[in-house]
Amino acid sequence: MPVGSDGVVPAQHAGGPAGHSRDPLDAEDLRDRVHKTLDDFLARQSDVLDGVSDDLAPLMDSVGDLLRGGKRLRPAFCYWGWRGAGGEDTPEIVSVAAALELFQAAALIHDDVMDGSDTRRGMPAVHRRFAALHRGNRWLGSSQDFGVAGAILAGDLCLSWCDEMYAGSGLSAEHLAAGRAVFDLMRTELMCGQYLDMLEQVLASTSVERARHVILYKSAKYTVQQPLLLGGTLAGAPAGLLTTYDRYGRALGEAFQLRDDVLGVFGDPAATGKPAGDDLREGKRTVLVAVTLERCSPAQAALVRRSLGDPHLDVEGVGRLREVMTDSGALDVVEGMISDLSGQALASLDGVAPPAREVLGQLVAAATARSQ
Amino acid sequence: MPVGSDGVVPAQHAGGPAGHSRDPLDAEDLRDRVHKTLDDFLARQSDVLDGVSDDLAPLMDSVGDLLRGGKRLRPAFCYWGWRGAGGEDTPEIVSVAAALELFQAAALIHDDVMDGSDTRRGMPAVHRRFAALHRGNRWLGSSQDFGVAGAILAGDLCLSWCDEMYAGSGLSAEHLAAGRAVFDLMRTELMCGQYLDMLEQVLASTSVERARHVILYKSAKYTVQQPLLLGGTLAGAPAGLLTTYDRYGRALGEAFQLRDDVLGVFGDPAATGKPAGDDLREGKRTVLVAVTLERCSPAQAALVRRSLGDPHLDVEGVGRLREVMTDSGALDVVEGMISDLSGQALASLDGVAPPAREVLGQLVAAATARSQ
Repeated sequence: MPVGSDGVVPAQHAGGPAGHSRDPLDAEDLRDRVHKTLDDFLARQSDVLDGVSDDLAPLMDSVGDLLRGGKRLRPAFCYWGWRGAGGEDTPEIVSVAAALELFQAAALIHDDVMDGSDTRRGMPAVHRRFAALHRGNRWLGSSQDFGVAGAILAGDLCLSWCDEMYAGSGLSAEHLAAGRAVFDLMRTELMCGQYLDMLEQVLASTSVERARHVILYKSAKYTVQQPLLLGGTLAGAPAGLLTTYDRYGRALGEAFQLRDDVLGVFGDPAATGKPAGDDLREGKRTVLVAVTLERCSPAQAALVRRSLGDPHLDVEGVGRLREVMTDSGALDVVEGMISDLSGQALASLDGVAPPAREVLGQLVAAATARSQ
Repeated sequence: MPVGSDGVVPAQHAGGPAGHSRDPLDAEDLRDRVHKTLDDFLARQSDVLDGVSDDLAPLMDSVGDLLRGGKRLRPAFCYWGWRGAGGEDTPEIVSVAAALELFQAAALIHDDVMDGSDTRRGMPAVHRRFAALHRGNRWLGSSQDFGVAGAILAGDLCLSWCDEMYAGSGLSAEHLAAGRAVFDLMRTELMCGQYLDMLEQVLASTSVERARHVILYKSAKYTVQQPLLLGGTLAGAPAGLLTTYDRYGRALGEAFQLRDDVLGVFGDPAATGKPAGDDLREGKRTVLVAVTLERCSPAQAALVRRSLGDPHLDVEGVGRLREVMTDSGALDVVEGMISDLSGQALASLDGVAPPAREVLGQLVAAATARSQ
């Protein structure tokens, strides 16, 4: 149902006549509301933890600090999936959207343990944070083990809280039941994607096809497609619109992850919040890596195979891999894929009514920007 | 509301006149139904995973195998909390009860990673299982890291599925909303208890009071009290009955964990499914350990401190610690606590109507049996 034609858009969100660009402050406004919703939720949980023991403050802080960062992409897709289907701008849909940030936090915390990553959003990864707490207090036993345990529990809390926030969003039981299939599948499929991602690494897979399959499940679906479908389904979107969301979500979701993979090698640490070349040291079998191995010389391939997954890979080593990726044309190929997929996502929006169409259009750029 | 006086008990579950003991097959029957419900749920999830990739079979199997075991105590408390409040015997409450097994599975899988345990329910712990898979296939990288990652994901799946099963149990939205506060608090408090448990270990705490506080959150609440309150709340139990459940649940929950701690040192591996003395090697700061340190000689205390947390502690070492615990009278003290708490739990049941009163009485014995 087109938004704007049925009076459901409150004045402050009406973007004027169709075709005019929306106030860019809107994106900021949604981020602020998601942030505030998370803050309020965490304050309530903090009371629960305080009631159990003063010793739990580090657990609460680890989650709170992580949740202050992030681009809030998933909430934006959920919110605009809802609005695009004629849903009103209400605090309830912002709560559902914010719940996705808790899911993302759980995924990141556990992912960093699995990958042995040191840094996230410019801060120590949660397991490193607990290890430092252990070391600083000269507690007994292994700081690393304590770090992993703390991060497992912090992630588990976020995973439970995601669902608590969804169920407690204030949307009606009928709405929530309708969204359940998407919400549940999103969680199961992400765990599957994470497992497959890990498997590709230990198999040292070089297949572009397999790498694209992993991207779909470890990233594209839960970043774009499923948040959008969740918002749309909650708002009772017709089948045609859900098909549009599905197409847009898959294409943009894949483009998002391809961009993320490129940034994992070529990105500016100040912007990505992760050290340069982290993906290379972790041995991630990305599409970029697979395309590189398809196109480079045998000598270059030997270098790639030798360097990938080397935890001691230094700046020069990263530089050499960048050179191979650039010289072989692999970087251009992946940039071309990002561009094609972004184009597909944009083209699929034709049937969506403004203002959702415009915002979803802007989100294509936001999700695939070269400097995020 | 007394069950039996309002005709809600189906014929096959009516236990005859009050005071007669119930058919002991009933416990078996509930276990079978929980098992069947879990099997059906896992079969549906297996289809989802198969749809993503054939490579996910080990992930599905790790969860399925773990869920075949277990005493199904938490489902029993949930089910009888419901029945005791006048709830009918329906498949829906069995689904909610079964969802607690998924929560328990998540807790066990992640707990075994955190504790570095090798064995669970007589089988390799899930992280050991994935490590063996990695080793057997001669995959790249560290088998241990792959094991931890696989177990984190398997636990995450169980945590998400617990909630999916709760929400999809078929109980009405009003029922489910009423139970939410208990369901949500149960999950948050368990993570808190797990963190505190880990903290006691690295602090080498010797306080009986602190150890009892940890027991409450890491075990008593989610094993007995909260499942019972969940069942009762879902069935609309009056405040008085919930207070009864609360008292029974706290007392029996603590007794259960004290028994578990005793079995962790003195138990028969064939019955516990864990190697003898595992808790000692992991350095668990149990009430039994704290009471021992309060009562033993300085020389014995030095032995305890030296042995606790030693991963290489052998059968003789375990034997020496057992001797200190027995000779110091600590084992008798803890057995006395179990007995007192069990008595309190039984006494609190006076106001509960049969047949729930009888079954909850039998569950006191089942949860604190010396050979479980």
